[in-house]
Amino acid sequence: MRERAQRDTLLFTDHYQLTMAQAYRQHGLAERQVRFDAFFRKPPDYGAHQAGYAVFAGLDELLTWMARATLSDEDRTDLRALRGAGGGRLFDDAFLAWLSSLRGWPGIRVLSVAEGRVVHAEAPFAVVEGPLAIVQLLETALLNHLNYATLVATKAARLRRTAGAGAVLEFGMRRAQGDAAFAGTRAALIGGVDASSNVAESLRLGLESRGTHGHAFVQAFMASGGSEADAFECFAESYPDDCVLLLDTVDTLASGLPNAIAVFERLRRLGHEPRGVRLDSGDLAHLAVRVARELDAAGFPDATITLSNQLDELTIWQVRQQVEEEAAALGLEPQRVLDRLAYGVGTRLITSHGAPSLDGVFKLVAVEGDAGWVPSVKRSDSPEKATIPGAKALYRVYDARDMATADLMTLHDERPDAAGGLQLHHPRDERRRRLSAADVSAVEPLLEVAWEEGTRRSERVDIAALRARRERDEVRLDVGVRRLRNPHRYHVSLSEPLWRLVRRTLSAEPPGDLNAPRS
Amino acid sequence: MRERAQRDTLLFTDHYQLTMAQAYRQHGLAERQVRFDAFFRKPPDYGAHQAGYAVFAGLDELLTWMARATLSDEDRTDLRALRGAGGGRLFDDAFLAWLSSLRGWPGIRVLSVAEGRVVHAEAPFAVVEGPLAIVQLLETALLNHLNYATLVATKAARLRRTAGAGAVLEFGMRRAQGDAAFAGTRAALIGGVDASSNVAESLRLGLESRGTHGHAFVQAFMASGGSEADAFECFAESYPDDCVLLLDTVDTLASGLPNAIAVFERLRRLGHEPRGVRLDSGDLAHLAVRVARELDAAGFPDATITLSNQLDELTIWQVRQQVEEEAAALGLEPQRVLDRLAYGVGTRLITSHGAPSLDGVFKLVAVEGDAGWVPSVKRSDSPEKATIPGAKALYRVYDARDMATADLMTLHDERPDAAGGLQLHHPRDERRRRLSAADVSAVEPLLEVAWEEGTRRSERVDIAALRARRERDEVRLDVGVRRLRNPHRYHVSLSEPLWRLVRRTLSAEPPGDLNAPRS
Repeated sequence: MRERAQRDTLLFTDHYQLTMAQAYRQHGLAERQVRFDAFFRKPPDYGAHQAGYAVFAGLDELLTWMARATLSDEDRTDLRALRGAGGGRLFDDAFLAWLSSLRGWPGIRVLSVAEGRVVHAEAPFAVVEGPLAIVQLLETALLNHLNYATLVATKAARLRRTAGAGAVLEFGMRRAQGDAAFAGTRAALIGGVDASSNVAESLRLGLESRGTHGHAFVQAFMASGGSEADAFECFAESYPDDCVLLLDTVDTLASGLPNAIAVFERLRRLGHEPRGVRLDSGDLAHLAVRVARELDAAGFPDATITLSNQLDELTIWQVRQQVEEEAAALGLEPQRVLDRLAYGVGTRLITSHGAPSLDGVFKLVAVEGDAGWVPSVKRSDSPEKATIPGAKALYRVYDARDMATADLMTLHDERPDAAGGLQLHHPRDERRRRLSAADVSAVEPLLEVAWEEGTRRSERVDIAALRARRERDEVRLDVGVRRLRNPHRYHVSLSEPLWRLVRRTLSAEPPGDLNAPRS
Repeated sequence: MRERAQRDTLLFTDHYQLTMAQAYRQHGLAERQVRFDAFFRKPPDYGAHQAGYAVFAGLDELLTWMARATLSDEDRTDLRALRGAGGGRLFDDAFLAWLSSLRGWPGIRVLSVAEGRVVHAEAPFAVVEGPLAIVQLLETALLNHLNYATLVATKAARLRRTAGAGAVLEFGMRRAQGDAAFAGTRAALIGGVDASSNVAESLRLGLESRGTHGHAFVQAFMASGGSEADAFECFAESYPDDCVLLLDTVDTLASGLPNAIAVFERLRRLGHEPRGVRLDSGDLAHLAVRVARELDAAGFPDATITLSNQLDELTIWQVRQQVEEEAAALGLEPQRVLDRLAYGVGTRLITSHGAPSLDGVFKLVAVEGDAGWVPSVKRSDSPEKATIPGAKALYRVYDARDMATADLMTLHDERPDAAGGLQLHHPRDERRRRLSAADVSAVEPLLEVAWEEGTRRSERVDIAALRARRERDEVRLDVGVRRLRNPHRYHVSLSEPLWRLVRRTLSAEPPGDLNAPRS
């Protein structure tokens, strides 16, 4: 039993990928060229609210793993020791030698949407092409890295939009799923949080981590014979220009706030400007308004008020509604109170509360035959769940307002020509929609080569660039699609040639009789 | 921007732990001896069902991290570059030098419940004692590692108990939260799953990973001019003694099952015994019964039937109910069908669906004073949420039947003496319960030294031993506490001396007036 699994092992995979790969090799299918599509069937549904789109993330983690993944001597020893029920070795030497030769993923081409971009249900966010046995081995790691990061980036984007002008801070590390804290923080930053408390990942990304102090800081002073005021005073002395004070260790309005204001006044006399306060319990909206009024009265109208405690996009939305009402009732300008709020979001972002997994799948859609790609389907699927077979390309269609109006799947070698107008076919029924040339301002290919010929092709870009991509895509979504609850369903369509291919494939291979009488 | 964050950096922490630590140092509190308790307030609530206890896991990951955590040159460079709003450095050289000296966590003692044991709400599963600034730095990693693993081990234990005699297999890697797949798989194994598909983590732990083939395997043969029967045939040829066939790629009953039976018959003629089949879609309970009947009729009464597809403990419970009814209706012996079932559990285990986080917290409970430990409280907490102050020990009390009847928190140096009977005090109100000496068969201390004097004290033990611990604890829980829904609340109590200390502490520091009129 070793101390810790290597992160970069090729064995970061499900057992059946290995058994399938060896069987493909033993039966002449390993080198067969195939295409698998990675996609999700529905955007996250959080129960009380639903996403109308997702933000694609995790590609950098995937490609980093791909570039490093190898089989170590220990891995080989372990695999050699595995026995079948008959007592013989499960994996033979030829297979182990082959596994050892896979560094760089020979023959594999990964096409992917760019990280940070908006993606939609059913449209492939990644396509992998190459020899069957090797593509199969990539499945688990690909889904693992892309599913989780996309889930968190999507949630972060929702928080970002709901929070208005206020900063959103990611504080979830202690509730993150172990080492997922690294990928989770990065995904949250891509999705739009302004900063994270996760020091290691923030610094790696060239960003500054953020945070101030916790309740323990005040408690430690109090249990050592001091007071909340002493704790604030000392914190301000250590961080005179970065002083955010947590008000609710004793009593927010009766103790924390007056103590903070006294410290702020002293800071200012010494030539420093206090940053603000944080509230972590109680009726956050009500307290925020009361605190804002007192800070105004004391001459600190620019001090921020950071709220934390089980926040998610719905709670933030509700807090903001209440602040508007209560601020007006107290004679404050509601917008000014809203504009000074910031939000610390922890557990509910990093675990994607309400929807803790994305149902991203990786499906075989085509196998190379003598005359090109042969579409593949899983016949037992019900029509609404059926994977769309065929080797495809993916385009985003913008309308005359430059708004994204549909994602269009086509045959892999089709070049949709907007000059003649576009036919968009519903993926599951006979409905179709025709866009005239005047209705279409642009048709943008979405899949780019991310990995080819043994090397990464998609360059590592910084978080700011990824955020810019996301924002650029988000503003080109209809408001209805961005809605917090019951969003309008964005159109994902098939081109006429792909639609005909799908129909031919499905009718050539009729689904099993799912309604066979039970007896 | 570096390629990847180091896993073993001391900066696997929240930013505010660093700002607090530096402030403690600058104001003479860094060396003050403190105790923090780690505990959760409620066992996981999955919505439609609830846990009555948790299974403690993640300690090995935490201690492994503690033994390796250091500040690298890159970390120092990054920290040196951080600026405050005033333009000056956020962390000074003295602080960086101190951080660099923390290898081995000088002065820190971690007391912990043993991994694999049953733990309950409010009772500390870990206690950390040592210099304030260093204990504070440990908080984030401690919670991160223990929260997630305990959550998954708890869910796995529920699945294990619900599944009866059938194997439970962990298949969640593709939906795991990135690298959390490692810790998640280990926790699932501690909680009781029989095996995992996660190759890297299973092999590291000295266990065999498990799995067979996916739909793609059958599809690949079909799209290459072959058939489902060919796919099964080839798979069986590769793994004659380990042949589990997935039946639902085409049509479970009309195609998959007869094809599998034909392959099984051939295997047997060649001297091999087939292992079984897997069903991944449709009405699993109904299909399992139908498949069982056909396998019986074909002479394969021992072939297992593995079910998968969005299973959790509630679904498994329901499947088993339905199997009982349908088997009887078809003239099969229900228990024989149940006994041949196995369950592949993916997403809903690894993400703890319904309760994707454990609310484990780490609270300052005592600070060393001139006359010993001074209890610490956060005064603003409402009585039901208040942390129980004071330096404590934790015991488990067994009744005359050798069943666990309560967990008992005491003063840290108190030795509960069952010979005179025990007084168990409700933690929040005046209720108390008296156990006579005859009512108590044993009083077991639960907290053991896990880290002391710079080294790990809790030895790494194998998964089998951890499972044995869990099973031993589970059988000593009342059935009502183990119930899947609305479990009976297990008693967590205070000793009379601790209760008096808590009362004294809370009355000496009255809570803020939370009901102050709003104005």
